[in-house]
Amino acid sequence: MAAYDYIHDGTAIYERSFAIIRSEANLSRFSEAEADVAVRMIHACGLVEAAEHFVFSEDFVSAARSALKAGAPIFCDAEMVARGVTRTRLPADNEVICTLRDPQTAEIAQKVGNTRSAAAIDLWGDRMAGSVVAIGNAPTALFYLLEKLRDGAPKPAAIIGMPVGFVGAAESKDALAENSYGVPYAIVRGRLGGSAMTAAALNSLARPGV
Amino acid sequence: MAAYDYIHDGTAIYERSFAIIRSEANLSRFSEAEADVAVRMIHACGLVEAAEHFVFSEDFVSAARSALKAGAPIFCDAEMVARGVTRTRLPADNEVICTLRDPQTAEIAQKVGNTRSAAAIDLWGDRMAGSVVAIGNAPTALFYLLEKLRDGAPKPAAIIGMPVGFVGAAESKDALAENSYGVPYAIVRGRLGGSAMTAAALNSLARPGV
Repeated sequence: MAAYDYIHDGTAIYERSFAIIRSEANLSRFSEAEADVAVRMIHACGLVEAAEHFVFSEDFVSAARSALKAGAPIFCDAEMVARGVTRTRLPADNEVICTLRDPQTAEIAQKVGNTRSAAAIDLWGDRMAGSVVAIGNAPTALFYLLEKLRDGAPKPAAIIGMPVGFVGAAESKDALAENSYGVPYAIVRGRLGGSAMTAAALNSLARPGV
Repeated sequence: MAAYDYIHDGTAIYERSFAIIRSEANLSRFSEAEADVAVRMIHACGLVEAAEHFVFSEDFVSAARSALKAGAPIFCDAEMVARGVTRTRLPADNEVICTLRDPQTAEIAQKVGNTRSAAAIDLWGDRMAGSVVAIGNAPTALFYLLEKLRDGAPKPAAIIGMPVGFVGAAESKDALAENSYGVPYAIVRGRLGGSAMTAAALNSLARPGV
């Protein structure tokens, strides 16, 4: 009979994982607070080399942490991002909102001539002011968010811009880094990103440590 | 004022993405049916090189597709995997089940001395027979599944074994490939994997094409 040899304790697994990541990843570009977020993002994707592509604006970690502590809602472009947020880590029982499946979204998408992921942002309204926005899936959502900020929409406290993929992902993140309309941001340059890394960043910002 | 130039149509974005992946990724090891699944998995992680690590057992795609068509339930180790399944692609309105947050799971975890992700499998019971099992997060869940199969648990029709990470992920997938107890399987060797790739595999198996 096969015997399987593995660690059974969840906390021990996390601690060992984070130790491996810190020993292998080049985190020297980051502040201590940024490195904490980076470690959890690497943990989510299984690739230490991903760290090369992480960019945090100078004020990002403190702005996002402060907003979450103050009870800011978290707006997500995808259900998977929302589902990846560990509710027990949130410092103020923050609301985690995804409007992708709202009954109005399809109609708005038709009207504005964009994807449902982009159109869903129109439902965030004034609550976007001071919020934490997490785009982990759709480049169109990030582009549309930038268009709204350009046109005077309420400013979030911080933007996590990490859509993944081959069409528009790199470009949308470059555009955020080039002009974030004064909003602190974090991105993963290039094609990498996704709901797991985005949720991991949120979970790290919500509460430092394992 | 900044003008953002990007494709606004979701279907066009998918088609362009898949074309880029097919032009860049080395899919020559795969059958046509396997390549369809591989393309969607690459799309989910943004990394064409990931394809080097994909392993499909010979009968995997046909076994998983047949089971789904016949109405098999899908058992997932993580809420993010379950949330990533596009319900409208499912051929038989298949149930998508994640028992991680079941009220009994924490108690079972205590009793069996394993993580909640592993313990959640104990709630799948006889319905595991003929099901499609999708492990996209926790190596402990995959190891525990193998222990249960070794000890005579009902056999799924197919296993998607794609936990991500640094501790046990590679080892659990190697163990599945070494002895899957006769169950067709797909894995991503090494550290890569995760909920998005796992859900992408399910979405491709549920319905071929964009």
